[in-house]
Amino acid sequence: MIPTIEASPEETYDIELEQTLLQANAKLARENRAQLDHYGITAIDFMGAIGSGKTTLIARMAGKLKDRLNLAVFNGDATTVDDVNLIAIQGVPTVQLATINGCHLDANLVGKAFLKIDLKKVDLIFIENIGNLICPAEFPLGSRSRVVVVSVTEGPYMVKKHPHMFLGADIVVINKIDLADAMGVKVESLVHDVHTLKPDIKVIPTSCKTGVGLDEVAAALLAGKELHADA
Amino acid sequence: MIPTIEASPEETYDIELEQTLLQANAKLARENRAQLDHYGITAIDFMGAIGSGKTTLIARMAGKLKDRLNLAVFNGDATTVDDVNLIAIQGVPTVQLATINGCHLDANLVGKAFLKIDLKKVDLIFIENIGNLICPAEFPLGSRSRVVVVSVTEGPYMVKKHPHMFLGADIVVINKIDLADAMGVKVESLVHDVHTLKPDIKVIPTSCKTGVGLDEVAAALLAGKELHADA
Ligand SMILES: Nc1nc2c(ncn2[C@@H]2O[C@H](COP(=O)(O)OP(=O)(O)OP(=O)(O)O)[C@@H](O)[C@H]2O)c(=O)[nH]1
Ligand SMILES: Nc1nc2c(ncn2[C@@H]2O[C@H](COP(=O)(O)OP(=O)(O)OP(=O)(O)O)[C@@H](O)[C@H]2O)c(=O)[nH]1
Ligand SMILES: [Mg+2]
Ligand SMILES: [Mg+2]
Ligand SMILES: [Zn+2]
Ligand SMILES: [Zn+2]
Repeated sequence: MIPTIEASPEETYDIELEQTLLQANAKLARENRAQLDHYGITAIDFMGAIGSGKTTLIARMAGKLKDRLNLAVFNGDATTVDDVNLIAIQGVPTVQLATINGCHLDANLVGKAFLKIDLKKVDLIFIENIGNLICPAEFPLGSRSRVVVVSVTEGPYMVKKHPHMFLGADIVVINKIDLADAMGVKVESLVHDVHTLKPDIKVIPTSCKTGVGLDEVAAALLAGKELHADA
Repeated sequence: MIPTIEASPEETYDIELEQTLLQANAKLARENRAQLDHYGITAIDFMGAIGSGKTTLIARMAGKLKDRLNLAVFNGDATTVDDVNLIAIQGVPTVQLATINGCHLDANLVGKAFLKIDLKKVDLIFIENIGNLICPAEFPLGSRSRVVVVSVTEGPYMVKKHPHMFLGADIVVINKIDLADAMGVKVESLVHDVHTLKPDIKVIPTSCKTGVGLDEVAAALLAGKELHADA
């Protein structure tokens, strides 16, 4: 038997404050959502581990969708502007959300970003969360759907290790499948793990390098948000 | 100009509590360190993004070092026991540190793990932190050196994006170099980025798959802790 120590947060910090914080965030997320609904905007946020391919995927989706609807992108990033620059060169309005030492986005930061774009001119907002598979799950932002991007290079246990993240998602993208053989990771097993956890979730294997699966992601984003770009 | 929103933590939670928490952790870390010194034990903690190879590297180091000194391993993992099981099969004493929803280890959890092993019989403890490149930097554990494990599959910006993590480390392992060509990532550029940030840090490119660099990591761990296994 391997001994196990379980964290009991009340020992080192105030659990009531933690609850207050989560409740405050949830309230702001509802306010964000109401504001988005008022303007007929859909927000979709992208979560996933560091380097899983969130920025690259958003850039590819922006390329496919920006001429069909009015897109804006918010990039969460602890300190640098690398991600937001990759999106901005596409000519899409962007806002940088610098969390400094924060390991997740929250609804407060996202609400402030609304003030930096012209909401009357936007149909769809993509939000890139901080690379982390733990706490973003606890902080809703007001988005209509949540996408989790995992990479086969993170190994075969990613789904089993982070159930909360997948339970809270609507679409799962399994990225970098061009490297699946080199990693010895079976894409079908990861798909199976997600469906075991949440049977009705949409799971799409992709490679942002070869382009495989990207049209399917674009279609899922449009369908999931019930936005009809051609209407 | 891309608009930027910067997080100001006092808006959503109590900055004083945050300071108190970090101070409480720092105090516990000093107590851990005093206890380790008392027993002549060196602790080394391994930080790095999700899936960067922390568990695999620790398992490989355990294989190389376990017959030369008395090793124990603490595995931080949000919920599952996959990592600790990979180490336990080597016959090394292990303790599972389950953070539940916590995104980093803290000195309190590590101190509790000391009670689960026989400190009189241990020379060296490896601690695997939670996969995260942000907050572990703020929570010292009482270890003598800190190792950061990054993977080339996380892309070329990892070092620039997470300066705090590297500034607080003594050894940087750049892992999965077997995939560098497939990723189009230049290992020398990552090495250069680390040295630009912190000139005197030890940087070792590795592949846990092919074995490249692993003897050098083992030597650096032994040297860094001034432990003479053969003495
Ligand atoms: N081989 C391969 N590389 C990819 C793929 N998708 C993204 N990449 C590369 O993976 C690296 C990380 O991609 P990003 O899009 O920056 O990942 P991210 O999730 O935004 O990273 P953070 O914001 O730092 O957490 C970059 O070098 C990308 O070019 C893919 O499908 N295959
Ligand atoms: N190709 C290749 N794969 C590697 C290498 N090192 C580790 N891996 C694989 O990468 C995946 C993740 O490795 P882990 O050791 O579990 O990574 P970790 O950092 O402990 O992951 P978490 O604890 O989940 O954050 C596994 O499938 C490993 O077999 C390497 O150098 N090359
Ligand atoms: Mg990114
Ligand atoms: Mg691990
Ligand atoms: Zn967080
Ligand atoms: Zn944390």
